[in-house]
Amino acid sequence: MPTLQTRMNQRWLLSARPLGHARDSDFTWEESPVEELADGQVLVRTVYLSLDPTNRVWMNEADSYLPALALGSVMRGGGLGVIEESRNSRFAVGDLVQGLLNWQLYLVSDGRGLSKVTRLPIPMTAYLGVLGHIGLTAYFGLLDVAKPREGETLVVSAGAGAVGSLVGQIGKIKGCRVVGIAGSEVKCRWMRDDLGFDSVINYRIENMPEALRRHCPQGIDIYFDNVGGKILEAALDHLAMRARIVACGMISQYNGSEAPGGPANLTRLIMHRARMEGFLCYDYADRAMEAFTELAQWMLLGKLHYRVDVVDGLENAPKALNRLFEGTNTGKLLVRVSEEPNLPTQAESYTSKYLN
Amino acid sequence: MPTLQTRMNQRWLLSARPLGHARDSDFTWEESPVEELADGQVLVRTVYLSLDPTNRVWMNEADSYLPALALGSVMRGGGLGVIEESRNSRFAVGDLVQGLLNWQLYLVSDGRGLSKVTRLPIPMTAYLGVLGHIGLTAYFGLLDVAKPREGETLVVSAGAGAVGSLVGQIGKIKGCRVVGIAGSEVKCRWMRDDLGFDSVINYRIENMPEALRRHCPQGIDIYFDNVGGKILEAALDHLAMRARIVACGMISQYNGSEAPGGPANLTRLIMHRARMEGFLCYDYADRAMEAFTELAQWMLLGKLHYRVDVVDGLENAPKALNRLFEGTNTGKLLVRVSEEPNLPTQAESYTSKYLN
Repeated sequence: MPTLQTRMNQRWLLSARPLGHARDSDFTWEESPVEELADGQVLVRTVYLSLDPTNRVWMNEADSYLPALALGSVMRGGGLGVIEESRNSRFAVGDLVQGLLNWQLYLVSDGRGLSKVTRLPIPMTAYLGVLGHIGLTAYFGLLDVAKPREGETLVVSAGAGAVGSLVGQIGKIKGCRVVGIAGSEVKCRWMRDDLGFDSVINYRIENMPEALRRHCPQGIDIYFDNVGGKILEAALDHLAMRARIVACGMISQYNGSEAPGGPANLTRLIMHRARMEGFLCYDYADRAMEAFTELAQWMLLGKLHYRVDVVDGLENAPKALNRLFEGTNTGKLLVRVSEEPNLPTQAESYTSKYLN
Repeated sequence: MPTLQTRMNQRWLLSARPLGHARDSDFTWEESPVEELADGQVLVRTVYLSLDPTNRVWMNEADSYLPALALGSVMRGGGLGVIEESRNSRFAVGDLVQGLLNWQLYLVSDGRGLSKVTRLPIPMTAYLGVLGHIGLTAYFGLLDVAKPREGETLVVSAGAGAVGSLVGQIGKIKGCRVVGIAGSEVKCRWMRDDLGFDSVINYRIENMPEALRRHCPQGIDIYFDNVGGKILEAALDHLAMRARIVACGMISQYNGSEAPGGPANLTRLIMHRARMEGFLCYDYADRAMEAFTELAQWMLLGKLHYRVDVVDGLENAPKALNRLFEGTNTGKLLVRVSEEPNLPTQAESYTSKYLN
């Protein structure tokens, strides 16, 4: 066994609670030797970290769906890594694993919370996107929470975002009229020309109520909400009867003191007998294979387009996080922490399994 | 046929849109002869008008679940009346009918929207309460929208109100722990001592977050919301996993410009995978008999307590309406517009039907 003492870890510790946007000064960079493995432990090298709006929520003092992170801890984050050393029979060197690897180069773990990734002939980054928590979120949020019917009008905010772009495309596959909302002309063009959305709205330059009225003449049957705030309020004002609002994310609310108040028109839920329901993809872990099988089929058949926006280097993670809130990322935002391992040659054999 | 010209109608017309609370000056009193009946029409004498928070919503310029009321129209309101004259074969003189009789002594109608009331040996006022829209609202809102399970914690705001007091009692029948919220010690005592609620909170003097924490140590499984605003916000902060919020009413939001903003913590719906759902009792018209049968049984068995607060005289309707918003009514608020007709003697025969 190689001596682990020679490996140096790099990590970002959470050192202050941001009030608004996270700043570099809320994190502290630390380098320290990696501890030696005990029996049952594995050493994971982080390859990609996923940056998601929820990272910002985890920096707050309040508990979320996970306990609050203590100051001084390694910043929490989901990622994809490779097993470099193993003293745990569940994991072999070279296995790809997913889980809360956190903002660090190396994780020493007893394996709890790590799940092995089934290799497919797709880019590794897809495991943190279409075939990861992003895909599960879009798939179950739309199909299980909203239960779309053919011909219904689906409005999705952050429609060019990682989740939203999949939601809109799955909506099209299911026969919905899809209206995507985003904050730039480039994003709007992508939704319309490449993703096949029926209508697009640039919320930064268009009048939201007027645009929703124009693009949803029968009202909104499903509003897939990734943003909350004023856009949620505008959507509430244009609900169709028995509308479903999927509360997936509320990025406008995550930056603490800068957040606007809640929608003042929740009575619309009563008037339109509408339902607003929250969910987390983690609740669907048992049914993940069902989603991945169908998502992989759609992807391999060219029915699902996606983009990744990869930032190089763990040191750039704090700055990159804010791009989500500024809307300047152009696809699923990832940090490449270290080199991808080589794809094993048997990967192609999975194609037939997922394309039957 | 008597000449109808001799009957004088009395009515309140909506003459201005209130900004906050409704004022007398938003209404105009009118007296005019009742028109003669045409073929197919009936003349209804209003006996009781129901005053509900929704009356205030109907005064606004915006459509609600009903079209907005034009200025100059008779003020809209539900009521219970008796057929005085009939040229419509569906209705006989002496029939009790329910519907939008509006704020007037006499209604001339072609019968659409009027429903005949099945007589039971109960006070007539119950038809505008337990065995009316109030009962339907409590019954289906709790049992169909929230679907309570034994042992769950049910919090109901305006718990001493017409709907809330029934919701809490039905919750007790179904085995829930019931926590009632109201705005006076008298109301709190009534909820605890007479209605059998497990805990009560006086929101005017207690710290809501602290009180909810204390009375709902396992979190809130069902929040039956009649008020919206700050109490909804406090409830959102104490949800249990998979909580259901029944959006029944949001009285704090109805007085237009005086309304506070919406809750700033809707992300709690996501964190707790919670559902907030609006409904209206009108959607359950097809299943009304199912509810009335069970509600009547509970009432006749002494399991449902209720109170009515009767204001005498149509001329007092505008002032009385504001009592709902001040919280000074002590039971289902009604206006007695004219004398109750005598209960026909065959009424008792219904007892066995409803107590089988």
